[in-house]
Amino acid sequence: MTNTLLILSKDAKVYQQLLSGRLPPDIHVLATDNIESVMEMQQQITLALAEPALIAPALTKLPHLKWLQSTFAGVDALQDDSLPRDYLLTGVKDIFGPLISEYVMGHWIALLRQFNLYHTQQRQQIWQAHPYTSLQNKTMVITGTGSIGRHLAKTASCFGVKVLGVNTLAKQWSEFDQCYTLEQLDTVLAQGDIVVNALPATTKTQQLFNLDRFKQMPSHAIFINIGRGSAVNEVDLNQALEQNLIAHAACDVFTIEPLPVESPLWQNPHMTITPHHAAVSFPNQIAEIFLGNLSLFLSSKPLKYSVDLVKGY
Amino acid sequence: MTNTLLILSKDAKVYQQLLSGRLPPDIHVLATDNIESVMEMQQQITLALAEPALIAPALTKLPHLKWLQSTFAGVDALQDDSLPRDYLLTGVKDIFGPLISEYVMGHWIALLRQFNLYHTQQRQQIWQAHPYTSLQNKTMVITGTGSIGRHLAKTASCFGVKVLGVNTLAKQWSEFDQCYTLEQLDTVLAQGDIVVNALPATTKTQQLFNLDRFKQMPSHAIFINIGRGSAVNEVDLNQALEQNLIAHAACDVFTIEPLPVESPLWQNPHMTITPHHAAVSFPNQIAEIFLGNLSLFLSSKPLKYSVDLVKGY
Repeated sequence: MTNTLLILSKDAKVYQQLLSGRLPPDIHVLATDNIESVMEMQQQITLALAEPALIAPALTKLPHLKWLQSTFAGVDALQDDSLPRDYLLTGVKDIFGPLISEYVMGHWIALLRQFNLYHTQQRQQIWQAHPYTSLQNKTMVITGTGSIGRHLAKTASCFGVKVLGVNTLAKQWSEFDQCYTLEQLDTVLAQGDIVVNALPATTKTQQLFNLDRFKQMPSHAIFINIGRGSAVNEVDLNQALEQNLIAHAACDVFTIEPLPVESPLWQNPHMTITPHHAAVSFPNQIAEIFLGNLSLFLSSKPLKYSVDLVKGY
Repeated sequence: MTNTLLILSKDAKVYQQLLSGRLPPDIHVLATDNIESVMEMQQQITLALAEPALIAPALTKLPHLKWLQSTFAGVDALQDDSLPRDYLLTGVKDIFGPLISEYVMGHWIALLRQFNLYHTQQRQQIWQAHPYTSLQNKTMVITGTGSIGRHLAKTASCFGVKVLGVNTLAKQWSEFDQCYTLEQLDTVLAQGDIVVNALPATTKTQQLFNLDRFKQMPSHAIFINIGRGSAVNEVDLNQALEQNLIAHAACDVFTIEPLPVESPLWQNPHMTITPHHAAVSFPNQIAEIFLGNLSLFLSSKPLKYSVDLVKGY
């Protein structure tokens, strides 16, 4: 059986090069950053390696798609009720953990150690030390215990941090000191020196972090969002920071991206904004995941990193 | 036998409070931040809990000192040839590892992820991502495999970093992927994506990091000094940064502290300066070490964290 593989990504050419010579000869490849350019071939496309947001608008026009390998961890663009779900979806679950861990630990240390303040002092040739505390024995709360949350938990533990996890059914993962249900969230938040949202975008997590949640956190708490923007009510977050309900927030994801210039968060001195860049897909890693799954797919074996389109993870 | 304990530290009152009620009743305590104020008692002082630089000038006038518990890791102030060495010296070897690890990993991530650039962008409401690389599979060279170097090695390993150590006799420590002798330094430096100096101040380490050493490092290398300032030739470091022999340096210690305002390092855009603050002695931790050692001392048992005054560590 002949397969046609659609590579749909701004890095399409990079992927084409990475896969060159490593695909079975009977696979026909269409590589593009624009779905429109290949729509005359739509009937032939059976496989896809694609960015969710780029392929979502075309999904209804790909009747023979059997398997889609996402290049991103977040697949909520594919979850719209109007979209077909009659294909296998696989994600990239294991490669973002290390990158997210670097982001979270780096920002946490930079905040506790006031890197910005020392940078300013340096430009003024000021040699002045300020008190700080260690990460040791602090408590990190992570909402979401998927592969990203678990990797972060393991990394934080290396610094002597106590790590509490929150997931749907309080499933206990060994990377955490303790896991709790989403219903116990408020009690857990009160213990967090730092709260990290690593939940996928689902109906349950929509605007989960609102004023009521921020009120539960200690006033010295740091909130970090590396999950999805939709999990946070940004008006409430800005208010929580202005009223010192929490000490600082660092967000890599927002409800609308790029974050609109009108957002007061840009100028909030207790806010760190990064442009959805905490974890990026390095194409060589994605290509390896794709090739591994392709081999499984062609021999009709279960694929790795499969995503449940209803749950969204 | 009655002992008189000198507490000599800018935190003398904090220590006095922390030890209050926890010392044997026959120990007489003198707590001060100024050695001159207790010099009429000099003949009685048998024990000291003190900052090396504060007690060093008075050492010759304390003939009955039997044991000195340093409040700092760096004891080079006590190594001057003119100073007596007929007392037990103990340090604070295990508490700085975690703090130094936070400093090094935090600064490394902040540099790789360009935290300063994103901070500047944020103030201009610019949403723009820049390429970066992960810590995974990078190589860290640590000169000095004492408790600080080893703790850092363990922490870096948690991020998937390969860690190479350098010590006098290439003693192999389990925290490192491989250890080398100081004679092999140049070969090892060439492999370092990051080079961290964690050596104590000894005659062997004096100006170890000079232009020749910086020339061995890759041009993308980051150099971090959390050991002693005397290990680095600062003129050479500035030149290495100006000539892009290495990409960036972050130093917490300098030959003269505070770093003189005339130093060109202050304004070097590839330089991060912090005011000898990467690891601080939290008095409660030092007090516990002191009390543990006091109990050993009074029962004539070997003390923990003893320092060889000749070696300097």
